[in-house]
Amino acid sequence: MEKHIHITPESKATFHNNADFCVGTGRMGLAMQEEYQKQLALAQELAGFRYIRGHGLFCEDMSIYQTAPDFKGGWKFAGYNFTYLDRVVDSYLEKGIRPFIELGFMPGAIASGTQTIFYWKGNTTPPAKDEDWVNLVKATLNHLVERYGYEEVVTWPCEVWNEPNLPGFWENADKEKYLHLYEITAPAVKEVLPEMKVGGPAVCGGETTPDWIRDFLTFCRDKKLPLDMVTRHLYMGNTPERKGRYMYHTMRTVDSIIEEAEGTRAIIDSFPEYKGMELHITEFNTSYNPFCPIHDTNLNAVLTAGLLSRLGDTCASYSYWTFGDVFEEGGVPPRPFHGGFGMIANQLIIKPTMWTFAFFNNLKGEPVYRDDNMVLVRRKDGSYQGVAWNICQENRDAITLNVTLPLSGKQSLMQRIVDEECCNPLKAWHEMGEPASLTKEQLQFLKDAGQPLCKTALLEGEEISFALELKQNALVQFTVNPVKGEPDEGYDYQWYVEHA
Amino acid sequence: MEKHIHITPESKATFHNNADFCVGTGRMGLAMQEEYQKQLALAQELAGFRYIRGHGLFCEDMSIYQTAPDFKGGWKFAGYNFTYLDRVVDSYLEKGIRPFIELGFMPGAIASGTQTIFYWKGNTTPPAKDEDWVNLVKATLNHLVERYGYEEVVTWPCEVWNEPNLPGFWENADKEKYLHLYEITAPAVKEVLPEMKVGGPAVCGGETTPDWIRDFLTFCRDKKLPLDMVTRHLYMGNTPERKGRYMYHTMRTVDSIIEEAEGTRAIIDSFPEYKGMELHITEFNTSYNPFCPIHDTNLNAVLTAGLLSRLGDTCASYSYWTFGDVFEEGGVPPRPFHGGFGMIANQLIIKPTMWTFAFFNNLKGEPVYRDDNMVLVRRKDGSYQGVAWNICQENRDAITLNVTLPLSGKQSLMQRIVDEECCNPLKAWHEMGEPASLTKEQLQFLKDAGQPLCKTALLEGEEISFALELKQNALVQFTVNPVKGEPDEGYDYQWYVEHA
Amino acid sequence: MEKHIHITPESKATFHNNADFCVGTGRMGLAMQEEYQKQLALAQELAGFRYIRGHGLFCEDMSIYQTAPDFKGGWKFAGYNFTYLDRVVDSYLEKGIRPFIELGFMPGAIASGTQTIFYWKGNTTPPAKDEDWVNLVKATLNHLVERYGYEEVVTWPCEVWNEPNLPGFWENADKEKYLHLYEITAPAVKEVLPEMKVGGPAVCGGETTPDWIRDFLTFCRDKKLPLDMVTRHLYMGNTPERKGRYMYHTMRTVDSIIEEAEGTRAIIDSFPEYKGMELHITEFNTSYNPFCPIHDTNLNAVLTAGLLSRLGDTCASYSYWTFGDVFEEGGVPPRPFHGGFGMIANQLIIKPTMWTFAFFNNLKGEPVYRDDNMVLVRRKDGSYQGVAWNICQENRDAITLNVTLPLSGKQSLMQRIVDEECCNPLKAWHEMGEPASLTKEQLQFLKDAGQPLCKTALLEGEEISFALELKQNALVQFTVNPVKGEPDEGYDYQWYVEHA
Amino acid sequence: MEKHIHITPESKATFHNNADFCVGTGRMGLAMQEEYQKQLALAQELAGFRYIRGHGLFCEDMSIYQTAPDFKGGWKFAGYNFTYLDRVVDSYLEKGIRPFIELGFMPGAIASGTQTIFYWKGNTTPPAKDEDWVNLVKATLNHLVERYGYEEVVTWPCEVWNEPNLPGFWENADKEKYLHLYEITAPAVKEVLPEMKVGGPAVCGGETTPDWIRDFLTFCRDKKLPLDMVTRHLYMGNTPERKGRYMYHTMRTVDSIIEEAEGTRAIIDSFPEYKGMELHITEFNTSYNPFCPIHDTNLNAVLTAGLLSRLGDTCASYSYWTFGDVFEEGGVPPRPFHGGFGMIANQLIIKPTMWTFAFFNNLKGEPVYRDDNMVLVRRKDGSYQGVAWNICQENRDAITLNVTLPLSGKQSLMQRIVDEECCNPLKAWHEMGEPASLTKEQLQFLKDAGQPLCKTALLEGEEISFALELKQNALVQFTVNPVKGEPDEGYDYQWYVEHA
Repeated sequence: MEKHIHITPESKATFHNNADFCVGTGRMGLAMQEEYQKQLALAQELAGFRYIRGHGLFCEDMSIYQTAPDFKGGWKFAGYNFTYLDRVVDSYLEKGIRPFIELGFMPGAIASGTQTIFYWKGNTTPPAKDEDWVNLVKATLNHLVERYGYEEVVTWPCEVWNEPNLPGFWENADKEKYLHLYEITAPAVKEVLPEMKVGGPAVCGGETTPDWIRDFLTFCRDKKLPLDMVTRHLYMGNTPERKGRYMYHTMRTVDSIIEEAEGTRAIIDSFPEYKGMELHITEFNTSYNPFCPIHDTNLNAVLTAGLLSRLGDTCASYSYWTFGDVFEEGGVPPRPFHGGFGMIANQLIIKPTMWTFAFFNNLKGEPVYRDDNMVLVRRKDGSYQGVAWNICQENRDAITLNVTLPLSGKQSLMQRIVDEECCNPLKAWHEMGEPASLTKEQLQFLKDAGQPLCKTALLEGEEISFALELKQNALVQFTVNPVKGEPDEGYDYQWYVEHA
Repeated sequence: MEKHIHITPESKATFHNNADFCVGTGRMGLAMQEEYQKQLALAQELAGFRYIRGHGLFCEDMSIYQTAPDFKGGWKFAGYNFTYLDRVVDSYLEKGIRPFIELGFMPGAIASGTQTIFYWKGNTTPPAKDEDWVNLVKATLNHLVERYGYEEVVTWPCEVWNEPNLPGFWENADKEKYLHLYEITAPAVKEVLPEMKVGGPAVCGGETTPDWIRDFLTFCRDKKLPLDMVTRHLYMGNTPERKGRYMYHTMRTVDSIIEEAEGTRAIIDSFPEYKGMELHITEFNTSYNPFCPIHDTNLNAVLTAGLLSRLGDTCASYSYWTFGDVFEEGGVPPRPFHGGFGMIANQLIIKPTMWTFAFFNNLKGEPVYRDDNMVLVRRKDGSYQGVAWNICQENRDAITLNVTLPLSGKQSLMQRIVDEECCNPLKAWHEMGEPASLTKEQLQFLKDAGQPLCKTALLEGEEISFALELKQNALVQFTVNPVKGEPDEGYDYQWYVEHA
Repeated sequence: MEKHIHITPESKATFHNNADFCVGTGRMGLAMQEEYQKQLALAQELAGFRYIRGHGLFCEDMSIYQTAPDFKGGWKFAGYNFTYLDRVVDSYLEKGIRPFIELGFMPGAIASGTQTIFYWKGNTTPPAKDEDWVNLVKATLNHLVERYGYEEVVTWPCEVWNEPNLPGFWENADKEKYLHLYEITAPAVKEVLPEMKVGGPAVCGGETTPDWIRDFLTFCRDKKLPLDMVTRHLYMGNTPERKGRYMYHTMRTVDSIIEEAEGTRAIIDSFPEYKGMELHITEFNTSYNPFCPIHDTNLNAVLTAGLLSRLGDTCASYSYWTFGDVFEEGGVPPRPFHGGFGMIANQLIIKPTMWTFAFFNNLKGEPVYRDDNMVLVRRKDGSYQGVAWNICQENRDAITLNVTLPLSGKQSLMQRIVDEECCNPLKAWHEMGEPASLTKEQLQFLKDAGQPLCKTALLEGEEISFALELKQNALVQFTVNPVKGEPDEGYDYQWYVEHA
Repeated sequence: MEKHIHITPESKATFHNNADFCVGTGRMGLAMQEEYQKQLALAQELAGFRYIRGHGLFCEDMSIYQTAPDFKGGWKFAGYNFTYLDRVVDSYLEKGIRPFIELGFMPGAIASGTQTIFYWKGNTTPPAKDEDWVNLVKATLNHLVERYGYEEVVTWPCEVWNEPNLPGFWENADKEKYLHLYEITAPAVKEVLPEMKVGGPAVCGGETTPDWIRDFLTFCRDKKLPLDMVTRHLYMGNTPERKGRYMYHTMRTVDSIIEEAEGTRAIIDSFPEYKGMELHITEFNTSYNPFCPIHDTNLNAVLTAGLLSRLGDTCASYSYWTFGDVFEEGGVPPRPFHGGFGMIANQLIIKPTMWTFAFFNNLKGEPVYRDDNMVLVRRKDGSYQGVAWNICQENRDAITLNVTLPLSGKQSLMQRIVDEECCNPLKAWHEMGEPASLTKEQLQFLKDAGQPLCKTALLEGEEISFALELKQNALVQFTVNPVKGEPDEGYDYQWYVEHA
């Protein structure tokens, strides 16, 4: 396929780039791991996210609601313990990322039931007594304010619970009980931090989501509850099939996902009180399963690119679930590649989707072009930068994008190319025989295999034209910079190109 | 061009791999620079050299022979000062590399003349008084023994002066005076460290070298002087032409260089007393000029590969001049690429030749094949590793090497490819407009552009066969490892290759 | 109190210094934490241990015995998973420390019961089927051999279970069942690694230990089981009292502990087959409770010094439980100081006992003096180094040690002093008001407050004499080095001492 | 001596703290050294300076004015070369410090004469042609703007030349020629950066300074030249005596130095056009000689404290000459301590004066007390911080400062004490025998010996009172923080203080 894109000085496009607002992570307790911190540092170096959101703030391994033996054979509350919370939040702030708070799950000691979720057993039942929960929330926020300062903490968004419309995450997916939880929690948040953004209902999945959001908004409006943002999740996977612990499913199209976001936007805007209120997609990805091999593929990278180019039209943020593979919801990862959510595999191997965010988060400037394969912006310094991609869901054709830019004189074109041939560590690992434990040699090779191919060209003319070749599931960053200055006197690059 | 290489279990080849023994460096005083140390750390990480040799041990900037004002308007000897020597040697040993000592040049305060060489003005005249020189040598060696221990220091080879057959490096290229210098220096070394290897004459260039070596050996034999190794230099450049500060020349062939080494070997072996004595090429490179653009090219990488595959037949070591571009003989580097000797450009951009050493220094095992394009070894663990290259001096043809290995079952092939298209930071820099100061974006791109392309394949059969494609001036490392273990139950790599 | 110690050239003493052989750690899963790794790196920098031993190799958080949903509502074995084991062992070896393997506890999925121990719930029941356990042990060792090599892994000692004589650690403290466990485990170890050292019974506490050891040795002898070492634990605490989660008890004397070690030694030596067999104290400390404030005190440092000076007489190793405060047996540490076992408090504050190991692990040379307050060795380089201490259990008197050494000429004395006044971060923290969360300023102050006071003196004479002042619970490292060389010409230190 | 200091809620004092504005450094070329960068990183960690000023921007080793052989036996201009300038400025900005530009010395190739200064031979003659100099200045500033941006570079102050009133620094100390240099330079600066602060005359020494400043201001006024700041230097040393390369002199008093600054202030203010114009002391120290042992003493630290407490009354900045001992004006440092200017000795040993800046640069808040021994500020958080010192020039008496603060309830007092007994690495080195090369053991000891002693106390009452003991040449930082929160339930610090 071939396309011609002709940019003029007047070209304009709509493109809202909120890709760097937030990224997802496994449970907060995992943030104490060294491997997690190394992966986060790498993600921040490459893509620079502003907020991070994950589960498990109040789970046992964080030990905030701390119990101790009462020496009568039982346990008693032993004070709030912020040792681990401080450790995690310190580590985030040092890396230039801030918490997007998710309030949950329930400490077992104050829970009304014993239902848990995941390998790491988060309790997903309402509090036995409301006040224990409210006190926990307020004590935690108060501690954060004391340690990090009001000005800092007030900028962290705060979401109440996670996916209460799924019975695994909230006992019986009981909507009444969730609305009650919100009713007691949102005011508690505002009591400590009146200007902190609070919201919900953090729902997931296509069927029940519209009703939940409508009922949630109605409830908030009727009860005059604090509400600053609406949150939901978005995944692309169709009905899966299962083999062993792995899950396989085809993906919906980008169009279909975008329509779903627009649907939620429309619901919100249908409430006069909430028209234009921020919609945050607090989780999104292709598959919703942490053992789905698609996450490690180049296809995943380009599907994500398709979403990043359009989700900003309706959403204030969209948080990719998750940045790294230190993640245990379905159990401990058995091999370096196992279909984990992460953009970085364990042992710091970069997966293709990491580059999607690296490229989009750097894409700042005035939008001049957007279609299903490309976004282009004009940068402040008079240069252009774009990201192009080729999603191969139904067909596998390569695409040639012929681009013309309104630039003259000498221009330098730099491309970073991520495709199945030149930047595909999953394939390399497969062709090593899918080892569970990597030798140093194998690990280094896989890290190297996760680097994009670099290409350059020196362009000149009254207009600048060039072609981008997008092979199957290719993702390309391209930058056109004006050439400045003169070669050094006597320096002749061509000499050794011609002689030998 | 196409070649077929069929390895059997009985295949054997001659290949002496001394590529990691030593590497060259600019003057010792530069080793205090942070950029130098970063480049050395990178070179050691990639290639792991054992010794390092450079000029300037006794130059003013090291201040070993230290003078101070006598407050009568003149200067007087103020004691030996090892502050900087300690700093440099500490930094070497911390990086796992040891000094290959070159005794020179002459401290101005004890020199007989004022002739200097280089931008940094090394004095290249004999000592005014022999004893000042001998005391300086002994004091320095004694200090090293005291600080680092006899057992350590005695392993460092020691060469007397540098290129005395060139008038710039030794006043009038006066052979008698050099032989006298050796006559007083070698015994001084042995007085402090009886088992330290000492040698010379460190000559350079085709014309006078044979005579110098013959006369040097005759002199040592007749005078019964200590002598443990013969040293000389080897450069490939034909007569150059000059443009501005840059120099351009075609290169001799690998064959021609190897013959020259064999000639020296033959001279040494013609002395019964010295037959088989170690020959160290204490400097080699393509061009002998630090402003010759060839050093930054892929051609340079493959010419070096050609030499590394054969120099071990006659030489105990061959020290590439130099590991990095922190180098000032011809002045301060004006741009990131400027034809400097280094395998690493300033700001840590890897040039293609660095990979030649990375690949060869890792090539350990039993040699099974060698020709003008490839060396192959069988590794202890039953796998194979090879390096292949395609020198394009007269023609530019690609080469296909069809390799068959005596392996069966599943095997994994990993390739790292360095060629003009996929790993050519010089070209990228040229196509940026040859900037003198790099932006962060440009620097990162050039670093990335210096990474090899990674390719893999999963092979299976009763014999293993594969083809290596060597484009113009390509350098390829390839490794074939047996596949161990089984895929994880239910993991199906093909699923997403086939579906989308 | 004042003592006179006169060393002559003939002075000799008995002193076996095995203090650096091994150190203890919390459960293996915690080794993935970044804070743990930082503390370990610091401990290694200061004291350089060779082995590390902790619990929890087979606990759920390491996920070696991995289960997955069977999608029929239950769980099934899903293969061994060494992802985390590799991560932990890699991190150890990178820091120059090797595992002292403790085989335990029982994966819940193959356990015969549900009894667990600790906040982190280690299952402490025998295997339901012996073969599941044996297979687990062998698979783990085989994996280690494959990844790290036989030569490496065979040097790691291997202990069967932990404290089976305590009902919490082994259901009903059932001795028969422990002997059976050993009977199936030791041969399994030897099957994989015939030369690996294997042993037990890892018992703890004064009362039942002698019987257990006697019965264990009898059993091994009668059954001709593999046995290379006997292991037990030693703690100094008398009967405690409790306040909240904290425990307080006075300590037994060093003499009493040494006698207990001698008792075990005598039991072993009473078996002709086992006479002289290595005895490893695989855990020791003052209190056996992780919420006992003594661990943070200077008293703890000097009690430990008393033990380190004498335990080598009977024991091949004695492993301080534990190096750091990343530890969760009794719950998550609520404050920086909380009486945790560690020699390093969370956030890298050095406690006094860390210096005991730093000083002893450096104490290498020919022993020339030992008493209850001091050990002195003559070092290879002609200098002397000693450690002195003053245990204040019953009285609080300072001690003056007047030391005379058989040295003449100029000598330099360096002291590092750790006592309640000059190196007592616990006191500093208490006087800050015992904060749970530290400000950066407080943290830096506590780190600085954990540094010894440095003192020097320049001594001269025909003999060298000096006095060491040991205040209450003081620990002092002192080194006497001969002064070499001459001052720089014209340098006059006294000038500014006298003028101003 | 005893003093009583009673602070009330109303207490106020004058104290302008500009101590962190700027620090001095040796010539710019040294900034490429690794040791220099490590020392700078340490200084920044401890004291956090905002600007850095040194000589040698245009000296040969920076190679900005670059020459190359003309191949006719001579040299020719080969373009400006900013390779090294970029490297240095990059390294500064990465460490959070910016250049305080000093324009000088003269590149030999454009100089009118051959007079040089220092071991490293800075040419100190006027330009042969004005335009070569002006072009050099403008090209350099233009390059900086292009690389770092106008907004950044415009904040860097710019001083014309160094100490032109001394014949060594400016041929014949020719005032007319300096004024001419300023006349051509200041407008050149403004041409590139209209808002950059430019000034002079950077004079040094008591005798000629007033006249130079007066004439300089008159000249600028009459010629209507750009002028944003007046600069001069201040050193405390009386007439020295010399021994070998070392210099010894008594120091003037702090009062006398402050008077000199006031004198300059008065001259400036006597010009209506320049009244209140910023006065920058672009160099100050005790001795002006880099081989004067006072720099390494505790006396130096307290003299500096005396100055820092008062110089802000008249001066916008006062730049201590120099932060570290990577410095070569008088030759390469022969030993770790040699009386160098630095606050950090080579190999990263902290000298007492470093703490003076660490303490003062942290002293932010509302001044409430100042006298000759102490400055105290009230911090935003309701706590107090002070620095106290005891200068022992004529007498050696200790001082007791009894301080009462208007605080009630529990307060925590933290002290860091630097005095001749507890933080005196120079004494430790002397008592090691003044070694030229340090063993690792000696180096570590000296680093540790450079750490302050930490003391704490828990205070309580309706007013808070405590005593600071200032021994000879003591420097003390003290902080009083309110105690927050409650001890953990059951935690009893006293138990082990009382029992054992």
